[in-house]
Amino acid sequence: MQLDTNQNNISFSAVTLSHLYASSVIRPNDVVIDATCGNGNDTIFLTEAVGNGGKVYGFDIQDIAIEATHKALSAKSLLQQTELLLQSHDEMLSSIPSSYHGKIRCIMFNLGYLPGGDKHQITLPSSTLEALQQSLQLLDVGGLISICAYRGHDGGEEEEKAVETFCSQLPKQSYNCIKTEHINEQPNRPVLYCIQKL
Amino acid sequence: MQLDTNQNNISFSAVTLSHLYASSVIRPNDVVIDATCGNGNDTIFLTEAVGNGGKVYGFDIQDIAIEATHKALSAKSLLQQTELLLQSHDEMLSSIPSSYHGKIRCIMFNLGYLPGGDKHQITLPSSTLEALQQSLQLLDVGGLISICAYRGHDGGEEEEKAVETFCSQLPKQSYNCIKTEHINEQPNRPVLYCIQKL
Repeated sequence: MQLDTNQNNISFSAVTLSHLYASSVIRPNDVVIDATCGNGNDTIFLTEAVGNGGKVYGFDIQDIAIEATHKALSAKSLLQQTELLLQSHDEMLSSIPSSYHGKIRCIMFNLGYLPGGDKHQITLPSSTLEALQQSLQLLDVGGLISICAYRGHDGGEEEEKAVETFCSQLPKQSYNCIKTEHINEQPNRPVLYCIQKL
Repeated sequence: MQLDTNQNNISFSAVTLSHLYASSVIRPNDVVIDATCGNGNDTIFLTEAVGNGGKVYGFDIQDIAIEATHKALSAKSLLQQTELLLQSHDEMLSSIPSSYHGKIRCIMFNLGYLPGGDKHQITLPSSTLEALQQSLQLLDVGGLISICAYRGHDGGEEEEKAVETFCSQLPKQSYNCIKTEHINEQPNRPVLYCIQKL
């Protein structure tokens, strides 16, 4: 599968690189999860990546996020492959049918607050780590968990460090854990963590 | 352009990720550089990426590396798009025709020693940094310099830190500088640095 290169030059950001990594593992007809729908950008990316025969589960705890994602998918006629759930991502293990456990090809997290929404309603380390733990059980061999972590808001740096600690403690025999960050003069740019199951 | 996914599951390493990043910027018919031919793996990747209408310049200071690369390219009938130069990469600015200056789409560095060769013959910070400086002048807008830096051999850590310092001092208005590293229990795995020209 191929990254959308309609724009001749893609500027590498945590989000575009998460799509690049995910594109290299997602195949047509895969089942994947957007753990944080937000405004639907990752949900659309995932839905296009898995194609008509695939399936995307999308989670968000905010009504307006689910509505925005529904609207964004509808505008692109992509609703039929998606199931949007107004739930916290730390309930994903019980919400995803057990027949898919161990077979989810990609799980994307985009942490922090909803762009354009209430900046005080943020993802929190405790539920993020619980959702990551559940994600490990859901993930396919060769599959990928990507986490965009933001450092610029209150609590962001704490959450990013919690994600880094989680990733750094996973056994190398079972997982590649990769940190990708901008290093020139951009301390508040988001950091991308990826967990690849071996 | 698309990453080679003949293998169903790619294990993310500094080298496979450098190919993934490069694949997202290289277009058919581009002119690119392999700054460290080694055994020819990156040269082959680049030659296939630019296609029949493209051009690859390959540098190495070791006879056996140029010979190995020539042989590897020949086996795949890829010699016609390549020009192999038995020169240090810190001479690239004078060796690449001036009509290509500012138009090179990708420049790949794979530092350290030649796998299977003399482990004492290693790339050194002074010539690596000079070659990186020249690479900035050669690079196209939207183009990419990738550097795989190894920490496991004598002098490796010093060179990796020199590359990190070089990247971290480039102005954010003109470059995205990105560090990608394994963070779980793998301190000696190579680190990937990427410089994207904006």
